[in-house]
Amino acid sequence: MSASHILCFGELLLRLSAPAGEKLLQSARLDVVVGGAEANVAACLAQLGHAAAMVSFVPDNALGHAARSELRRHGVDVAGVQVSEAGRMGLYFLAPGAVLRTSEVLYDRQGSTFALAAPDAIDWTSRLRDASWLHLSGVTPAIGANAAAAAVRAAEAATLAGVPVSFDGNYRGKLWALWNGDGPGVLHTLLSHTALAFADERDIALVLKKDFGGDTPMERRRRAAEAAFAAFPQLQRIASTIRDVHGPDDHTLTGTLITRDGAFTTRPFRLSRIVDRIGGGDAFAAGLLCGLCEGKDDRTALELAMACACLKHGVFGDFHQVTRTELDDVLAGGGGDVRR
Amino acid sequence: MSASHILCFGELLLRLSAPAGEKLLQSARLDVVVGGAEANVAACLAQLGHAAAMVSFVPDNALGHAARSELRRHGVDVAGVQVSEAGRMGLYFLAPGAVLRTSEVLYDRQGSTFALAAPDAIDWTSRLRDASWLHLSGVTPAIGANAAAAAVRAAEAATLAGVPVSFDGNYRGKLWALWNGDGPGVLHTLLSHTALAFADERDIALVLKKDFGGDTPMERRRRAAEAAFAAFPQLQRIASTIRDVHGPDDHTLTGTLITRDGAFTTRPFRLSRIVDRIGGGDAFAAGLLCGLCEGKDDRTALELAMACACLKHGVFGDFHQVTRTELDDVLAGGGGDVRR
Amino acid sequence: MSASHILCFGELLLRLSAPAGEKLLQSARLDVVVGGAEANVAACLAQLGHAAAMVSFVPDNALGHAARSELRRHGVDVAGVQVSEAGRMGLYFLAPGAVLRTSEVLYDRQGSTFALAAPDAIDWTSRLRDASWLHLSGVTPAIGANAAAAAVRAAEAATLAGVPVSFDGNYRGKLWALWNGDGPGVLHTLLSHTALAFADERDIALVLKKDFGGDTPMERRRRAAEAAFAAFPQLQRIASTIRDVHGPDDHTLTGTLITRDGAFTTRPFRLSRIVDRIGGGDAFAAGLLCGLCEGKDDRTALELAMACACLKHGVFGDFHQVTRTELDDVLAGGGGDVRR
Amino acid sequence: MSASHILCFGELLLRLSAPAGEKLLQSARLDVVVGGAEANVAACLAQLGHAAAMVSFVPDNALGHAARSELRRHGVDVAGVQVSEAGRMGLYFLAPGAVLRTSEVLYDRQGSTFALAAPDAIDWTSRLRDASWLHLSGVTPAIGANAAAAAVRAAEAATLAGVPVSFDGNYRGKLWALWNGDGPGVLHTLLSHTALAFADERDIALVLKKDFGGDTPMERRRRAAEAAFAAFPQLQRIASTIRDVHGPDDHTLTGTLITRDGAFTTRPFRLSRIVDRIGGGDAFAAGLLCGLCEGKDDRTALELAMACACLKHGVFGDFHQVTRTELDDVLAGGGGDVRR
Amino acid sequence: MSASHILCFGELLLRLSAPAGEKLLQSARLDVVVGGAEANVAACLAQLGHAAAMVSFVPDNALGHAARSELRRHGVDVAGVQVSEAGRMGLYFLAPGAVLRTSEVLYDRQGSTFALAAPDAIDWTSRLRDASWLHLSGVTPAIGANAAAAAVRAAEAATLAGVPVSFDGNYRGKLWALWNGDGPGVLHTLLSHTALAFADERDIALVLKKDFGGDTPMERRRRAAEAAFAAFPQLQRIASTIRDVHGPDDHTLTGTLITRDGAFTTRPFRLSRIVDRIGGGDAFAAGLLCGLCEGKDDRTALELAMACACLKHGVFGDFHQVTRTELDDVLAGGGGDVRR
Amino acid sequence: MSASHILCFGELLLRLSAPAGEKLLQSARLDVVVGGAEANVAACLAQLGHAAAMVSFVPDNALGHAARSELRRHGVDVAGVQVSEAGRMGLYFLAPGAVLRTSEVLYDRQGSTFALAAPDAIDWTSRLRDASWLHLSGVTPAIGANAAAAAVRAAEAATLAGVPVSFDGNYRGKLWALWNGDGPGVLHTLLSHTALAFADERDIALVLKKDFGGDTPMERRRRAAEAAFAAFPQLQRIASTIRDVHGPDDHTLTGTLITRDGAFTTRPFRLSRIVDRIGGGDAFAAGLLCGLCEGKDDRTALELAMACACLKHGVFGDFHQVTRTELDDVLAGGGGDVRR
Repeated sequence: MSASHILCFGELLLRLSAPAGEKLLQSARLDVVVGGAEANVAACLAQLGHAAAMVSFVPDNALGHAARSELRRHGVDVAGVQVSEAGRMGLYFLAPGAVLRTSEVLYDRQGSTFALAAPDAIDWTSRLRDASWLHLSGVTPAIGANAAAAAVRAAEAATLAGVPVSFDGNYRGKLWALWNGDGPGVLHTLLSHTALAFADERDIALVLKKDFGGDTPMERRRRAAEAAFAAFPQLQRIASTIRDVHGPDDHTLTGTLITRDGAFTTRPFRLSRIVDRIGGGDAFAAGLLCGLCEGKDDRTALELAMACACLKHGVFGDFHQVTRTELDDVLAGGGGDVRR
Repeated sequence: MSASHILCFGELLLRLSAPAGEKLLQSARLDVVVGGAEANVAACLAQLGHAAAMVSFVPDNALGHAARSELRRHGVDVAGVQVSEAGRMGLYFLAPGAVLRTSEVLYDRQGSTFALAAPDAIDWTSRLRDASWLHLSGVTPAIGANAAAAAVRAAEAATLAGVPVSFDGNYRGKLWALWNGDGPGVLHTLLSHTALAFADERDIALVLKKDFGGDTPMERRRRAAEAAFAAFPQLQRIASTIRDVHGPDDHTLTGTLITRDGAFTTRPFRLSRIVDRIGGGDAFAAGLLCGLCEGKDDRTALELAMACACLKHGVFGDFHQVTRTELDDVLAGGGGDVRR
Repeated sequence: MSASHILCFGELLLRLSAPAGEKLLQSARLDVVVGGAEANVAACLAQLGHAAAMVSFVPDNALGHAARSELRRHGVDVAGVQVSEAGRMGLYFLAPGAVLRTSEVLYDRQGSTFALAAPDAIDWTSRLRDASWLHLSGVTPAIGANAAAAAVRAAEAATLAGVPVSFDGNYRGKLWALWNGDGPGVLHTLLSHTALAFADERDIALVLKKDFGGDTPMERRRRAAEAAFAAFPQLQRIASTIRDVHGPDDHTLTGTLITRDGAFTTRPFRLSRIVDRIGGGDAFAAGLLCGLCEGKDDRTALELAMACACLKHGVFGDFHQVTRTELDDVLAGGGGDVRR
Repeated sequence: MSASHILCFGELLLRLSAPAGEKLLQSARLDVVVGGAEANVAACLAQLGHAAAMVSFVPDNALGHAARSELRRHGVDVAGVQVSEAGRMGLYFLAPGAVLRTSEVLYDRQGSTFALAAPDAIDWTSRLRDASWLHLSGVTPAIGANAAAAAVRAAEAATLAGVPVSFDGNYRGKLWALWNGDGPGVLHTLLSHTALAFADERDIALVLKKDFGGDTPMERRRRAAEAAFAAFPQLQRIASTIRDVHGPDDHTLTGTLITRDGAFTTRPFRLSRIVDRIGGGDAFAAGLLCGLCEGKDDRTALELAMACACLKHGVFGDFHQVTRTELDDVLAGGGGDVRR
Repeated sequence: MSASHILCFGELLLRLSAPAGEKLLQSARLDVVVGGAEANVAACLAQLGHAAAMVSFVPDNALGHAARSELRRHGVDVAGVQVSEAGRMGLYFLAPGAVLRTSEVLYDRQGSTFALAAPDAIDWTSRLRDASWLHLSGVTPAIGANAAAAAVRAAEAATLAGVPVSFDGNYRGKLWALWNGDGPGVLHTLLSHTALAFADERDIALVLKKDFGGDTPMERRRRAAEAAFAAFPQLQRIASTIRDVHGPDDHTLTGTLITRDGAFTTRPFRLSRIVDRIGGGDAFAAGLLCGLCEGKDDRTALELAMACACLKHGVFGDFHQVTRTELDDVLAGGGGDVRR
Repeated sequence: MSASHILCFGELLLRLSAPAGEKLLQSARLDVVVGGAEANVAACLAQLGHAAAMVSFVPDNALGHAARSELRRHGVDVAGVQVSEAGRMGLYFLAPGAVLRTSEVLYDRQGSTFALAAPDAIDWTSRLRDASWLHLSGVTPAIGANAAAAAVRAAEAATLAGVPVSFDGNYRGKLWALWNGDGPGVLHTLLSHTALAFADERDIALVLKKDFGGDTPMERRRRAAEAAFAAFPQLQRIASTIRDVHGPDDHTLTGTLITRDGAFTTRPFRLSRIVDRIGGGDAFAAGLLCGLCEGKDDRTALELAMACACLKHGVFGDFHQVTRTELDDVLAGGGGDVRR
């Protein structure tokens, strides 16, 4: 593993999706991509030139090997992706929405190798050596008791090792319900180790068990952030996007970043004729980590995060395929006529 | 056949369409779906949980068998779809429009098994037993003299059996012209048996040979409806959509329902980035029949019809693939972000 | 060759493009179409019923033969497309943009058969016999020294033969830079032979080495046109489009035509959900030539050109696939609901 | 349900397969078909004109509904396919072999709705009413304890109802091993209820815990059959195919049928350039049941079974798509030049 | 039209075929190619460098235009392909066979523009000017009374103009039966104008109403040829292939040519793993005409014909895509390892 | 780079191939895979669990980056693949053969980044550190003067560093001819540094300018090997396959390995219905290197090489996708029925 890499811990998934404009199994094919919230962050960071390393578990079969290889294709260090005899490959099915039909995700992750892995199966001391960040998300502990314990262990080890934790709320009520997990409790613990949180007022409300009023989304987020900064001394930054959904493939996105000293918002970006919305939040997280790792100031890092998130909506698949040139193009106004 | 089923009578067709953004035979493939105005209604009703049965004729070859099987796949009772040695499978070719290019349908239905079938080939007495509705459309009589006679026979038999008739105008001037059929005359006869008509002021003007002025579409439709209610004592409801076409794949749709007592309109629905507009009117008809069969009041039935019609624009193919959950989602505002 | 045909001279190219929503080689296939600025004009003119003939060079292999055959499929006379042992097929790769990502062209034309062809390899005297126009573009001389010399030779021969020259600026700075060609100088020479130029104020500024101010695009174009008419006595018409880019697949296009006597603009056309923007300018040129060849007045010819250009944005591929019916439809307002 | 139908009980599966010549996930798509040993038999029987009904469980999501609909498309009565909230859709992944590479199946059935269903969830008394046969296979009890109990219950109920049982050995050691099930014991119980068994000497050896020698496959099968007839008084016929594998897509198949009175073998059929071998055994079973239901003598029924099995190898998918004309063609020698 | 071209007269068809290994409409796509017996000959001759011109009728719609354009792509002169308002595009559906399943053609040609065309719609005097051959086939008169009259007229005109007629038997009993045409009578008339016939002993038996015995195919063909030479004084050569069918995609082909002076056979060619057998006979005809036009001796012409026919079996589509290099390669033994 | 890795030096290429059964550009798509003789060896070794590292040059554009990423996906260390501004991506087009039509490769490598790279652009001292083998092939020096110099430099550096050289003859006359390179001379130099050569009697004859007679291929190879061992003292092993070509997709392959002490041949392997023959020789080389690296004896290593080569013929693409399980399966006889 490279010096000063960003470590991502979470489940690798296969996404099986219906062709655009079709419902699941309307025709006899499924398009397959590799994804998973934390893997998406790792792949995006690697594409942007940062050393990124993944910690995960996959089954010892053709599916597990393929998922790991695809992550490697994007330049992520996969030495920490363990292969195991037990369990199956985590899947999810996606029916992309259209016109007034909402996109729908059908999770099929029960009994996965990741879910079955023992919480102590990872040697965090060696994995965290030379890491600049540990990135986690709220999807991981939602998978089951083992995964929740593993996520907490990871966060604790990072705090111990002095590695700052980036945590993306990603609350998935359906997953927690499947095993009656204490979502708010576990997220509270994880946030207490977090330096950079991706969370909006609903995430914080859930954890602090308290609602945050306000006339605008930004006002509500500021109030929630204040409460979060009070509750979690280690926490330095809370970032989120305000997503205004006009239709399944037509959104407006605005980026926000709140620190203990200030608050920033970007201009709203109209994203019409979206190709693939999945992974947009992960691209936002990757962009912000990218900016922070490069020593950018908060406003610049936020703009980088937004450019990254917006571009993701125009690329098929969970993993982002992005170049520095494209980011610069968006930061400069972007979306122009053919470049020859 | 189930008790209290809805009976649909019309031709099953194969649609052969060019890939999106291409003209017919620009590349060497055609996508094939099964359709036909009345079959679309039957398939949609079955998807929504209603017993629907089809009466039709298909050739005794691989194409006819496949069309019948596909209808069965959607849950429609196909015992009334007769297989015959004579004639060919009815086809139509579709070049979907784009940007400023209009979508174009090329009918290829001459000499079809349905067109050649004798008007007395169906035993309506047994078919209509336990039927709650008979659904017909104006496309069927337009196919030729045999089909026109058969449609009239069907309507007469329904009146005799006390089964209410639902009739969708669907005027196709080109088809009537091919055999010099008396479109207005035949439609007049069919409307005289109709309880629920899908028709706008142009359909009614054609039949009553009289124009209907008015400043707004709704005003014109009300006046036409008045005249129709006067002319056809059996008629109870006239429904239609107002379609404002901004481009081949960007429409605004408003639903209207006029009864002898009142008139209802829905809010306008903006349908942008339409996947497949074919079958939108049939989904509207199916939704309204669905609502009426379930004893919904007129306004609620109309809203159900519109939700159903709007969703159809987001699904590839002539047949609708719709779930109750999706309908509820649209009725509740709809078109949100990914559902996980 | 037919009497009174339009002659087009330029390179035939293969375009290899990624599927929509994907980046180059994101998945393991490329879609291939035949293109090239001047071939696009020829194909479009032939589709519209005009005799069009191509002069070009292709390698004597499967790729060269296929490109020539495809042009013939569209009805272009390819007797002037010479097959040669030397050089390779000119290619370009295209990654279509989406959301905020700009479409990107990657040229791969070095060492092509066209680039290697000797400037005197064409017998212009015989080729120009009975020609009504010679169409050239600024891409051709940008390819290299040989091609630049050949383009100048062609223009000179046309002047000598009394055949009017149509010239589309199409300035490609990257291509000129590859061989340090004197772009402005060569274009100046070509414009001095031109009767109909497709050029905006930047093209003219480049050639006349002088900037043209003005508050609106049209004002700047008028001023540039005045200067051009002064500098090039043979020049009679300058046409161009004003393209307002809202996103990679959402543009507004306005057509302009400036003559020595007057200036015309069309209404702006909103082109949303563009299928393929490549070849839009060539369709504009073809439409204008079509109008002029048919003796239409300037305003009508311009409207024809715009209808043609707008329709191109809705068809996949470099070559336009257009019918007279479609043009008439757009001229009459266009873009309506399904035509049955 | 029709009078005198054949009832099939087992799991519906989705098969996700790599394109021919590729390994799993080598490219980013999977082809999806519906299958399952007993469903394959039902679909084939329905295609051949017999009333077939399925008893199974699928999850209440898009995958479960699609699987059930596809079975209905083939003409199978799916009223007995129960939809349940619990569990996931059973899947299997297939990498078709090529040249010297063996085809490989990767089961992903753990936690499926079928596996979780309670053994008493089916009302066998009503399901078996008017049934002419109950068809089971050895895959079903291998899925888990619940499924094993359910299969035994089904067989017992059939014996009680006087409905003959058809049982296809289909021993899957890997599946039994996953839950330490007593395969031989359960199969022994099932065979004690069986009238028609599809089994070779290895299946019988497993159950009777005794090896059967002999110089030829047929001799070994005769000896095993003798022992089976002795052990299972209800058993009347034992059928099997002798498959000689020259390569993944080049086999020779010979059909055998042993009764208490005699033994029959067909000529060997060379099956080269096999399209899809999966479901070949199920087609054999369906063909034999078809023959017996039609009152054919044993030899004729066996030949029908072989024709059916051989044709299956030439059709993509688990379900057979076969017509009577094709069967007749093979029985008459078959495999000729184009039929026009 | 070029001097000394070969004229082909017959119907242009669209072939719609299921993907390999699938039955018609098993999945939702059809692959489309342009074909027709005589068009296949024309396309093949043009590919081999001969001037070939087509005489036919297509409907004035997207399908008719596309068919004509595709023929032009292969280099055939299509000035004689008339566009007409009446009738529809002739189609045929193809389900390619596999393993023991026979390939199946489903004609859908009734009411086609070609079938409806008046027998005197072609000005044969001008079409036959400078023609070196007129090629006809037995499919054309089988289409209907108009087409039969037109074919006879064409042959008579050729005899009058001194242009030798090439006639390919291609007897299609099913088509003749549809309109009770006198197949043998019409073929007799056509053969009386023929110089080069493609026919085996069954074709000749049909026309001369007389059987031809013999122990080997070649002996039977010799005897039939003798009788034909006696009956038809204009006839000089009779060519045919002996096709031994081992399976739908595994044939052995031997070429034969019988003249008034001698008889030639080629070695047998084993064609395994056939890609597309349709058009194989037409390629044989084109190859022989190619050889004769180039003044090759009979044996050499026959070998060329066989090489051409064999290569066709390895190319998808009705039209042959063949190069001289490939022909030379087969004549020299062929079918070697990768050529780099 | 890992300790004790195998270093491969050569050009990365994109292969653009027509779909099976089609000629180049017959339809509008090309399938793209990454290849190149030495990269194929590296990818195969990595798949088999060996550390493999590539040294190469790719252009700094989407194509070059994608090629490098794909190699990384297979597990090859790509730190030595330099990205450069100069030159284009090397391509080759492939039309797979069928029936009697030979597969054809069309190289398009002129002006590639690899061809333009300076011979001293690689720091061999650091690259060769800890390398167990350096693998080269005869394609690399054939590309041009720079590449030839670079290959020689690489071999010299390896000798200096004590790293044994593996060299695959791969003589490409067409490529040498393009720049009048002294093929035999350069290969002589390379062989003088080689410990393991992949070469048959024609390769050796070319280099030693001397023919080798003998009644069987094996005899000729033995004699050539004797001469080679005499001429090149560093040479220890000469391996090759005897390929008997029955048709484009039906070969028989026999492996041979000759050492200074003995000679080994495997049994002949019949490879029918080949999926992709490209890369078969590279898989043989990789398999042998794999065996030698694992300390297998010569016979065992040869058998491993043959199993690897045979399996490659059943996988689409240039890169091999192989597992240890598959190799073991072939070594044990292989190619059986479905593995479940």
